[in-house]
Amino acid sequence: MNKSAQTRKTILDEAILMASKTGLQALTIGKLSAAVGMSKSGLFAHFKSKEQLQLDLLKQVAKFFKEDVITPSMQVPRGEARIRVLGQNLIKWDDSKFMPGGCMLHTSSIEFDDRPGPVRDFLVFNQSYWIDFIAQAASIAMEEGHFSADLDTQLFAFEFHAILQSHHFSSHLLNDPQAKIRGIRMVENLIIHSRK
Amino acid sequence: MNKSAQTRKTILDEAILMASKTGLQALTIGKLSAAVGMSKSGLFAHFKSKEQLQLDLLKQVAKFFKEDVITPSMQVPRGEARIRVLGQNLIKWDDSKFMPGGCMLHTSSIEFDDRPGPVRDFLVFNQSYWIDFIAQAASIAMEEGHFSADLDTQLFAFEFHAILQSHHFSSHLLNDPQAKIRGIRMVENLIIHSRK
Repeated sequence: MNKSAQTRKTILDEAILMASKTGLQALTIGKLSAAVGMSKSGLFAHFKSKEQLQLDLLKQVAKFFKEDVITPSMQVPRGEARIRVLGQNLIKWDDSKFMPGGCMLHTSSIEFDDRPGPVRDFLVFNQSYWIDFIAQAASIAMEEGHFSADLDTQLFAFEFHAILQSHHFSSHLLNDPQAKIRGIRMVENLIIHSRK
Repeated sequence: MNKSAQTRKTILDEAILMASKTGLQALTIGKLSAAVGMSKSGLFAHFKSKEQLQLDLLKQVAKFFKEDVITPSMQVPRGEARIRVLGQNLIKWDDSKFMPGGCMLHTSSIEFDDRPGPVRDFLVFNQSYWIDFIAQAASIAMEEGHFSADLDTQLFAFEFHAILQSHHFSSHLLNDPQAKIRGIRMVENLIIHSRK
């Protein structure tokens, strides 16, 4: 990684840490430049606008999501085992240390769902891809004979994603010590109800 | 209702309409006073601070939630039928016209989950009450013999609330025409899986 790319990564890491707790819109170039010890103009050399910073931040989070949630699931057998690992990774992900306010793809989706523009467009694209990915994983579990042949894989995908949303509510709003174990049980319930 | 109470209601209705789309923090006394055609000082006579306005707004939304979701469910028989009506009302609620950005108790919970203070405290109180209310409704369905005697009513409550969260995601982020019907199916699936 060259120096410019390294600086960019340092800025984005700090931006994620800050925006995860405050929300994306509260992240300003001013506050961020103070936090990383750079001038505002230095920051503008890396991100041309606040919107560009928001987009680049979410793309970085999406990259981490792929690395932390999706890629490791590909190491386990297709079907039910992969779904289980995806669910476990998803719950860990929402409590990631680098993102103390929880999954920023989830929180930003709420923040931007009524704000038309490139940030919302990216979130719709990213979250639709995720829903399709889960539906596809459920289809594989059907092919493997683990899940019922008449499972509605689209409905399954929304129910699966709802586990992250519920975990976020338990963990980040209610500070409930049962959040993680409840999330794991929700994954297991959904798997059981999807079998033949 | 006296004139002052009527004015207060007019201001809160407009505040809900605005904040539902932008988020609570983006609602300023300045923007709100312009929208209702009052002076800033006139608005301050009703709400002493931005935080007071946020709290009063959420209390008003919670009052509507009770009127639109909870109270009508008490008109139907205890047990499974009441759970079903609660679920249907919940989905309608998230698409209420007076709150075009969807359930403000849900969106504000995300917005404030990392912002300690009276607004977050109110949301924790309100949302914990709601979770307990659903768990209690599930207990009644157990007593009536509709639900399995070994149902985990707390887990049920979080799974039930997750349906609102999932509906919000489908309806408000993805603009998915299937959002409502999928929500209803999620309610029905949860009921079926909770039976003996």
